[in-house]
Formats: sequence, C-alpha cells, structure tokens
Amino acid sequence: MSNKGITPREEDYSQWYFDILERADLAENSSVRGCMVIKPYGYAIWENMQKNLDRMIKEAGVKNAYFPLFIPKSFFSKEASHVKGFAKECAIVTHYRLKENEAGDGVEVDENSKLEEELVVRPTSETIMYDTFSRWVSSWRDLPLKINQWANIVRWERRTRPFLRTTEFLWQEGHTVHTTHEESLKEVQDRLDMYVTFARDYLAMDTYYGRKSDSEKFAGAVNTYGVEAMMQDGKALQFGTSHDLGQNFAKAFGIQFADKDGDIKLPWQTSWGVSTRMMGALIMTHSDDNGLVLPPNIAPIKVIVIPIFNDENKDKVLSVASEIVSSLSKTIECVELDERDFVSPGFKFNEWEKKGVPVRIEIGERDIESKTCVVVRRDNGTKESIGLEILSSKVEDLLRNIQEILLEKSKDNLISKTHKIENFEEMKTQLENGGGFVLANWCGDEECENSIKYATKATTRCLRSEGEGESGKCIYCGKESSEEWLFAKAY
Amino acid sequence: MSNKGITPREEDYSQWYFDILERADLAENSSVRGCMVIKPYGYAIWENMQKNLDRMIKEAGVKNAYFPLFIPKSFFSKEASHVKGFAKECAIVTHYRLKENEAGDGVEVDENSKLEEELVVRPTSETIMYDTFSRWVSSWRDLPLKINQWANIVRWERRTRPFLRTTEFLWQEGHTVHTTHEESLKEVQDRLDMYVTFARDYLAMDTYYGRKSDSEKFAGAVNTYGVEAMMQDGKALQFGTSHDLGQNFAKAFGIQFADKDGDIKLPWQTSWGVSTRMMGALIMTHSDDNGLVLPPNIAPIKVIVIPIFNDENKDKVLSVASEIVSSLSKTIECVELDERDFVSPGFKFNEWEKKGVPVRIEIGERDIESKTCVVVRRDNGTKESIGLEILSSKVEDLLRNIQEILLEKSKDNLISKTHKIENFEEMKTQLENGGGFVLANWCGDEECENSIKYATKATTRCLRSEGEGESGKCIYCGKESSEEWLFAKAY
Repeated sequence: MSNKGITPREEDYSQWYFDILERADLAENSSVRGCMVIKPYGYAIWENMQKNLDRMIKEAGVKNAYFPLFIPKSFFSKEASHVKGFAKECAIVTHYRLKENEAGDGVEVDENSKLEEELVVRPTSETIMYDTFSRWVSSWRDLPLKINQWANIVRWERRTRPFLRTTEFLWQEGHTVHTTHEESLKEVQDRLDMYVTFARDYLAMDTYYGRKSDSEKFAGAVNTYGVEAMMQDGKALQFGTSHDLGQNFAKAFGIQFADKDGDIKLPWQTSWGVSTRMMGALIMTHSDDNGLVLPPNIAPIKVIVIPIFNDENKDKVLSVASEIVSSLSKTIECVELDERDFVSPGFKFNEWEKKGVPVRIEIGERDIESKTCVVVRRDNGTKESIGLEILSSKVEDLLRNIQEILLEKSKDNLISKTHKIENFEEMKTQLENGGGFVLANWCGDEECENSIKYATKATTRCLRSEGEGESGKCIYCGKESSEEWLFAKAY
Repeated sequence: MSNKGITPREEDYSQWYFDILERADLAENSSVRGCMVIKPYGYAIWENMQKNLDRMIKEAGVKNAYFPLFIPKSFFSKEASHVKGFAKECAIVTHYRLKENEAGDGVEVDENSKLEEELVVRPTSETIMYDTFSRWVSSWRDLPLKINQWANIVRWERRTRPFLRTTEFLWQEGHTVHTTHEESLKEVQDRLDMYVTFARDYLAMDTYYGRKSDSEKFAGAVNTYGVEAMMQDGKALQFGTSHDLGQNFAKAFGIQFADKDGDIKLPWQTSWGVSTRMMGALIMTHSDDNGLVLPPNIAPIKVIVIPIFNDENKDKVLSVASEIVSSLSKTIECVELDERDFVSPGFKFNEWEKKGVPVRIEIGERDIESKTCVVVRRDNGTKESIGLEILSSKVEDLLRNIQEILLEKSKDNLISKTHKIENFEEMKTQLENGGGFVLANWCGDEECENSIKYATKATTRCLRSEGEGESGKCIYCGKESSEEWLFAKAY
C-alpha cells in the first residue's frame, strides 16, 4: 500500500477500487445490505453528470416526469418476456404498518396490514409508465411522446460493489412512443449517440457501441444497443443501453393511436438509460495509484488553490491566493481555495491529489515576490512555475489539454485492449492473459455463445459494426459468419 | 362547470383543485393507491422549485448527498419518540424474490426469500443518516456537517390527494450537526428564513412562521418551527418545517466529537424540509376558475406566443412570430412559440390560460401591418396592443408587475383571513364561517389544545410571535397566557 493508503492496481485491482472510493470520499457501504451512501464529493460528480446529460436529453425534445416507486405485482405478468427478466430479484412490499412489540422495546410488522396485492419496488419502469401512456396516447397528435425520469431503482443483487452493482442505484430512464418503426429506430440510435458523445466529451471516455446479442438484450425488447467501455484491468463495462421495444409493450399495455386516416394502430416504442454505474466507469478509466483522476469537464473542483503560509505571513499569502481565485473564476468555473489552517500544505496536496482535482496551484511568499505560482497537473504530475499575469489563459489551456490527453489515453487503452482473434484457443489464451475485448466472428447461435461463456467467462458485449464486419468462420463452431462481435469478461 | 371544464371554487373547492390538476396537465392518480404521476408540465414547475431552492441551499454551505431508500426496522427503535411518530404507517419490504406461479400465468412472492430483518421504505431519513454521521464525525474539525438530500419518501396515508398528501412524495431533507446549541439554533432559523424567502420571491406567497406546539412537532425534535400559508378557502397549509433536534438523535445514534480541548461531547442537530406539497400550495394560492395562475419567477413558460394564421399567410405570420420569440429571448427566459396548425388560436388561448402562462402574445396579419401585437396577462386578463419595437421592455415590466401583484394578493389574503379572537364562541363561529387563521392566546396546555381541536377541527399552526404576543387569557380555559397562537383547519 502506498503512503496514500491506496493499494496499487498491479497488486489488487479490486482493493484499489475500494481504496479510491474511500480515500477520495466518493461513497461507502451503508448499514443496509447492498445499498451505498453516496458521499458529498461523489454526489457532486453525479450532479455534474446529471446536469449535462439532462440538458442533452431536453435538447432532444424529451420532457421529464415522475412515476410511482411501486409497481403492482400483476403488471409484471403482462409482457411475457419482461416478467422472465425482471420480476425476479426484487424488493417486495407486503405490509404497510409497524406496531410496538409486546416487550415494548421495539417494533414489529402488524400482520393486519397485509396488502391485498403486493407491490414491487421498481426494477425499471416500463410497466407502470406504459400503463399510464395507454391513457395519454389516443391520436397521432399525441406522438411522438418523449418522457424521461430521474429515479432510484432497486434490484436485489447477490454480489454488490459501490456504483458498479448495488441493490439501490440512481439512473435516468427515457421512454418514447412513435407512429412508425423508422422513427423509433432513429430515436434508439440518436440516444445511443447521445451517450457516446456524453462519455467522450464530458467523461473523456472512448467507447464501442452496437447491437447486443439476444441473450444479452433487455427483457421485452426487440433489440438492445449498448455502449461498452474498457477498464484498465481488461474487463468491459456496459455504460448505457438503448432499446428498440418494437410493439411488444404497446400490445401488452394497450397503447393505441388513431392515425391521420382514422385507422387505429399500435405505436413503436423505445427506452434507454444510464445509471450511477457511470461513476464506476469514470473512476476505473482514469484513476491511478495516487487516487482519483477527474476530467476537467466533469470535475466538481477544476482548480484548487493552496496557500503556503506561516503565522507571520498568513494574511498576506491568503489575500494573494484569494485574488488568484477571483481572477481565475472570471473565466473558469469551480475554482476553490483551501484556506484551512489546521492541516499542512503537504496534507492538502495529498488530499486533493487523491480527490483527482485536475489542476493544483501552490502560492507561497517567495512565489508572491517573483509574481509567479506553482501549477501542478493531476494527470501526469508535471509542475511548472507560471507568471501570475498569464495564469488564467495558461490554466484554461491546461484544463483543455488535460481533457484531451485523458480522452487520448482512453482511446489508446480501448484500441490496445482490442484483439482480433482467429481461433478459439487464441481467444481463451487472450482472455486468460490480459483480457480486453476479443473481436471474433460468431454465427449468432446461442449454443456457441453459451459454450464460449462457460469456457472463458466472457460474454458477447456487442456487434462491432453492423453489416461491415469481415466475413469469416464462427470462432466456436466454424460456421460461416459475416458478423464480428466483441467478447469480453465484464463488470 | 365552466366552458374550461373547471368547477368554480364557490361550487366545490375540492373538485376545483382536481379539475386544475387535470386541465393544466399537472398530475394524475396512478394505478398504485395513493401514488401520483407527476406529468411533464407539473414536473417542470417542480424542477424550477428544485433548481432555485437547491442554489439557496448550496449558498448556505450545505452539500448534497444520497442515502439508502431502505431503513432496517431496528433503527426506528433507537430514538424513543421518533419510533412513536414514524415507525407506524410505512411501506415494509419483507421479501426479495418473486417466482412464477404454478398456473404459469403470473408471479407470486417466493416465501423462501423472506428477509431476516424487514426493511422500511424511508418515511424520513434521520435514522439512516445519523447512523452514518456517527462514523463521519469524530472531531470539531468535522463540524459543522451540513448535508441535504433530494429524495422520494413513502408514508402510508389513509386519505390522499395529489401533491397535498400522497403515499409517495418528493422532497428535500437537510440535516446538520453543530458543536453548540447556539449554532444549531441559528441554522434552524436560517433555513426557516430561507423557506419564507423562497415562498415570497419565487412562489409569490406570503406566509407566517413560528414555533409549533409540542403535539404538532416532529417526532424526536426539541422544537419544530413551521412555515404556514393560507389557501383561498380559509384552510391553512404547512409549507415547510425546520427542527431543533437538540442532542436527542446524537445520543440515540452515538454521534460524538472531540472538542478543541480534547473533551468528548455530544453535538447539536437540525433537520428541515419542503416537499411536492409546495405544488399544492402554489396551485391553491393563485389559481382561479379559469385554471392555473403561475408567478413568472416559477413558470416553466413565462411567455407564450400564438400566431394567428390561415393557409395563405401562414409562412409570413410564423416568421414574424419566430422573430418575436428570438427577440424576447434575448432578455427573457422561457419564451415559447405555439406553432401547431391542427388546433385553432381559440383552442390555444384556452389551453395556455388553463396552464397559467403569465403572458400571452397574439400576433396576426393585421398586427404585423400595424407593427403591434396583442399582449394578454393571465392574472387579471387585461389585453393591450403594444408596438413591436418596445415589446421586450414592456413584457419585462409586465412579468415583474405580475409577480408583485400576485404577492400582494397573497399578502392581502393572509391578512384578511387572520382574525384576532377574544373568546371561544367567537372562535367556533369564525372557524365554521370562512375559516382562516384565528389568532388567540393559548396557555400551552395540551388538554386545551385537544378540546379546541375536538370542538372546531382546528389545530395550533404556530406561535405568532415569540415573546411579542399580547398578553391575555387562554381562549379555552381562561388561564393567563403571554403567547398568541395561530389556529386553523389545515390541509
């Protein structure tokens, strides 16, 4: 373990992740099994994700709304394949009252308060929303209907890890209804593009995207498209999904509309979402053995100014440091001053490094005399003395550069960890040594997919390029196949 | 019922409220008992409330975080009076798995998935947060700790009404921890002031505020302070609350800190919140028999531009209407164009009136020729023809004026519905005829409070003015009392 209290990645990647969560004050396990507490610094990053994605969603003509947390049990039986996928590991509300126990030292469930129909805490909201949509939609004039919800979701997971897989998590779920399949398919692709753009421009993450296999698609969807990222340890992470629901749910929930010619028709639907999982992806993409590394475009604090003072020059140094903050704040958001006097500058350097603040500025008495300050970038640790009169423009350049460099590194990681493989032995070897994405032809048969999964623990992540892949033979059975798929072990 | 499909207030105030919810597209009942769907237009108003209040909360040095939805049952037994108030009508999760039923046509609860300890869906988060705070706080350096959470809350209410009282609702809950009672009391007052300011400046609502009686205070608090609003029908509505928790929860959850001199001490805590109830308060404060009326500072659409065209002049009129929108948008937020061609201008006037948009602009061919447009204000219906070249500044003035006038009306309503009462007979008569706030001396005895409630259905709302009330005799028992209290029937 380093002097930062962070286990090196080489030693234990999983422990490294937990150490980052703790040392950067992002999240912690709660007293409720599988549920996390998102701490203020972690939540501030999530708020930045929300703010930017929410703007993109609204620009796409989607409106936010809010639907109930609880879903009647019977709703899950309405769409045949949805029930198989979702009505399983859920939190179920069966009673609505507690009473004092006989001993008088606690409470117990009042058996007289049993619900007639149990309620399921939403594992996703298709059923409750589409039950409502069936009353909102009656004419082509009501379409397209584009609704988004920011909400908490509960899925009773066996093995949990903060942000990556938790019993309760936060997400947005978009749900749209269209008159034609052509239009709904465009929505599916547009929202997928939106997620790819968001990952690239804000989180500095390069990703793959494409259609998922039948076994990996959303329960009830015709097709699911996924955005896939590659972590530093060679494991893939599904960043977000966008579903072509066809008319499956419209049939199940009785959503119909009168077309311009008066005909009653079934509409075409989509749903799409990303969650607090993105936090896990962000952490594992950029961070290093010294702590979190944040891209400037998503960092809650972009620049931290640390005054170096003693009892005698405290006022003077603090005053110049404040001036630097005011001056930078004219053109740069989220510049903060750490003026605490009960911890040392070294302690502060360490703390803000662990928290991944992109740029650190150190200012002491000697710097003031030379009208300079020391500027340190988090991504590569380089230190530079910069004149105060050119500081703003230098820091702006630096922030832009850090954002670019982090994206470049993510691109390099994605490409260097993608391996075109020609036979199954090679595939097994690659997945055992280093992992990453394995690009291979696959015939589309679920039996081959299962056999590969059984032998390697890798799953199909997504089709690499619709219709553009190289022809070849299925990596498992050898049948002719024109589709190249990405396989990987995944979070 | 009017031609707008809205029952007049005089006829049936409760039905009027439901009609407004429906006709202004704010919310509707869901398929889950007591839970509402907040529709996009209603949610946009809530988002404006959130955005502005969130900024005020952050300016007060409070940071957002997120805590689990579920609370272990045993947590409710830790603070003796909290359990009495909260661990009662709650949604209780007892199982975590569904399975297909034998008939194969639905799902049923898997009895093998019974939880060892039941989980309560949070009715408020003191217990789960303070369990966590006990690990976050160890030194005076960790204080003050100021945390806020935006979350959904569940309380199993018998009688529900959208926004006013629902099984699930949305809220913010602030929780702070301080080294001294003096400091925590200041926080209680500051957050109360924040709510009063928010109600006044954004929602154009004048309110009373003050200490609540012991029987009306938060379960576990030393004192609760409330913000009280007066609806048009003479019933009061509790808008928000701020609690002095003393050291009660710190004791129960083991929150301690080492003071500067090394002594281990118990800290002092506060909690405070407002909810989607504010939506009900907003609706009932300003709206009239023609629909919703929104103060400009909270309206999702401040100005709606309605072009009046036929097939021949459509392009020309739409082009001028678009120019008006662009020109106004330079200085005014949330200006929208209604360019639908499948509904008449009359239909649009009606729709936006029902939705409470503060200013409507009508522009047709004749207006274009005279370089004017017709401007209609929602609050009083006055129409004016205004020259296009001075339109922006006129509309800005108008929006400011509407905001002021609505606040004035709210003030007048509050004052005219506050009645200083000298004896109990007078009190009963007033509460039966017109209602409103009754201002009367009360001795503080819970027996008197209960007797008044039994006889009049009115409850104590809050102390009018701490220490400044006129001395007098308790309205019920006649004992000397220096405290004047506000009584009212309440939502």
